[in-house]
Amino acid sequence: MALIVQKYGGTSVGSPERIKNVVRRVAKYKALGHQLIVVVSAMSGETNRLIGLAKEMQAQPDPRELDMVVSTGEQVTVGLVSMGLIQEGLKAKSYTGAQVKIITDSAFTKARILSIDEQNIRADLANGYVVVVAGFQGVDKEGNITTLGRGGSDTTGVAIAAALHADECQIYTDVDGVYTTDPRMVPEARRLKTITFEEMLEMASLGSKVLQIRAVEFAGKYRVKLRVLSSFAEEGDGTLITFEEDDKMEQAIISGIAFNRDEAKITVRGVPDKPGIAYQILGPVSEANVDVDMIIQNVGVDGSTDFSFTVHRNEFDKAIDILKNKVQNHIGAQNVVGDNKTAKVSVVGVGMRSHVGIASKMFRTLAEEGINIQMISTSEIKISVVIDEKYLELAVRVLHKAFDLDLESA
Amino acid sequence: MALIVQKYGGTSVGSPERIKNVVRRVAKYKALGHQLIVVVSAMSGETNRLIGLAKEMQAQPDPRELDMVVSTGEQVTVGLVSMGLIQEGLKAKSYTGAQVKIITDSAFTKARILSIDEQNIRADLANGYVVVVAGFQGVDKEGNITTLGRGGSDTTGVAIAAALHADECQIYTDVDGVYTTDPRMVPEARRLKTITFEEMLEMASLGSKVLQIRAVEFAGKYRVKLRVLSSFAEEGDGTLITFEEDDKMEQAIISGIAFNRDEAKITVRGVPDKPGIAYQILGPVSEANVDVDMIIQNVGVDGSTDFSFTVHRNEFDKAIDILKNKVQNHIGAQNVVGDNKTAKVSVVGVGMRSHVGIASKMFRTLAEEGINIQMISTSEIKISVVIDEKYLELAVRVLHKAFDLDLESA
Repeated sequence: MALIVQKYGGTSVGSPERIKNVVRRVAKYKALGHQLIVVVSAMSGETNRLIGLAKEMQAQPDPRELDMVVSTGEQVTVGLVSMGLIQEGLKAKSYTGAQVKIITDSAFTKARILSIDEQNIRADLANGYVVVVAGFQGVDKEGNITTLGRGGSDTTGVAIAAALHADECQIYTDVDGVYTTDPRMVPEARRLKTITFEEMLEMASLGSKVLQIRAVEFAGKYRVKLRVLSSFAEEGDGTLITFEEDDKMEQAIISGIAFNRDEAKITVRGVPDKPGIAYQILGPVSEANVDVDMIIQNVGVDGSTDFSFTVHRNEFDKAIDILKNKVQNHIGAQNVVGDNKTAKVSVVGVGMRSHVGIASKMFRTLAEEGINIQMISTSEIKISVVIDEKYLELAVRVLHKAFDLDLESA
Repeated sequence: MALIVQKYGGTSVGSPERIKNVVRRVAKYKALGHQLIVVVSAMSGETNRLIGLAKEMQAQPDPRELDMVVSTGEQVTVGLVSMGLIQEGLKAKSYTGAQVKIITDSAFTKARILSIDEQNIRADLANGYVVVVAGFQGVDKEGNITTLGRGGSDTTGVAIAAALHADECQIYTDVDGVYTTDPRMVPEARRLKTITFEEMLEMASLGSKVLQIRAVEFAGKYRVKLRVLSSFAEEGDGTLITFEEDDKMEQAIISGIAFNRDEAKITVRGVPDKPGIAYQILGPVSEANVDVDMIIQNVGVDGSTDFSFTVHRNEFDKAIDILKNKVQNHIGAQNVVGDNKTAKVSVVGVGMRSHVGIASKMFRTLAEEGINIQMISTSEIKISVVIDEKYLELAVRVLHKAFDLDLESA
């Protein structure tokens, strides 16, 4: 007998019919003798409907009141799921985040979980109940309802699994696991049986939208065994996300090719090479709530250097504007140039720590196709390059093949 | 400066536009220097939508889970109303029933309020907030969300007014007050400036659907000054419901004519006139959850009597069936007869306590129109008769005129 947390996203509970599919799956696991906690999102479309209502009242809805409204989405789902389970003859009980006592800070619309009271849930499980918990929400110390921000239901699932020391946290989505790259771009992409947390973090933050990055961080921190599965496929083991690098011994050096099409590149040229410059450039950008991804600064020549970074394409104009009007003259830079027709491609794998030559193989593969590399950034387990957007598909395909990701034995 | 509770029903908050009307009204009172607590229902149609979803999961939804789902309706409204108020530049804060700590028993879908913690609300009011509370809902001692049953939002409004010793509880509906009778039936019907609680109770229970009877009882018990107003009219004082009979000194003996079209009459004939018979007849009926309204038993003749009562027309067949199959032979009654084409008409007024001749005037008025009286029942402040349904409109009209209810001076 295992204690399993199952998390179902909005698409998986998008209609009473789909909820009945979830109910059948839960009942199947319950019949095997497992203890089950089910974490659910709002029915797909519901959160947007509620935000729409809110925006009719206030163009920028008050954050506390927005959480009050939006949190009802998951509350409806937990009730419906419990009804379905009870209809199937199971004992079931639903909980809002506040009822569990998922205590968060008071950062409405993007709260962070501080603690989870597992007592009630544990008592219910011991009494044979399937416990159904509203994802995405909690309550602050003053009793105000909070939400964790988009995708927060994954985090709820992982946090509850951590608090109750669950044997496994299963995340059900509309894909059946984590792939070596996007199968829509490379038909030869394979599902990975396992991937390490570090790799998953890199894959998630690089644009593989399977899991919310916060949930992965949380799972890594609290050593929650995480599995990504399809809620639409009857069978399949999905992808298990492991802490143990040992599990990967027999596996490939590279786990996958991640990419991000929405990357825009900005360079501030002729920057005086002195302390504090990076902050003077990026401070105004981040104050304007523009997220910065890659940051590169090369060794300076003659007291001057070039400073480059990437932002989301939608924020390219805004960032350029800030730099030209607020930064360039202020710091005495030569000029600001940019390109919003770029994309980022990364090879990810814990194996590259102990294997030299990954970078050179990547660069050679791209060079053989005539693809110019505009920026390079590396971490312990990934190498990212920025290239012209028009070469993105080609780059992903040739790298996927070069690192043998299309081979079953890989 | 007064502390005012305003309660708005589902129609009054049925759309963002209508909520903005509510916001304007609240802002107007706030500008006069009053402290405001606003209690709201779910947007019209929302509760039925949620019940519909629930019934797709379970034909008879689990009551606890149903309350979990249905209570989201009011939760959405309080958030939207608060946003509207904040948009208008006011300080506002919404509360679910659980957040207020409206503690109820655990009778899901029809819970009763046990206590209300007024501390947080009082602190918010002192800090200049308009407090917006979800009607219709509470939380039991174990933290489960409960609902008070249909119309429970009125009860929430009154209960909060009682707990905080509010100066007035204003119930906004789609009518602009309590009328001497239904204006759709008698165009001469007038709005009453005041009505006593006892009269209102009789009017409400007799089919004037302006206020929920539980709310009126509650208001009477805790001496909450209650006022019924229209949420669609800009002006008007509505009808004030008073405890002080003195207020009525200059007013009419009769306040109004109530009626109920859905009454069905049942008579058990030839019942042995001995102790326990009434229980033996009505016990099985009430066990089947059939609500009984009027009950009449005349003095017996030769050890035998007739026992009559009325039920809602929809439950007529069920009641007849129970009596014929479970009661008639068991108690040795002669037979069971009934008529579901009857209606009840009542004259209501505290003045009749001290004025003889009200009954005879009522009976004479009906006799002059050739209307046969089938049953009579009286209380301290009302006289009800059951008549053939086809005479209902006529009876209401002639009684309204006979008691001078169409005269402004009345």
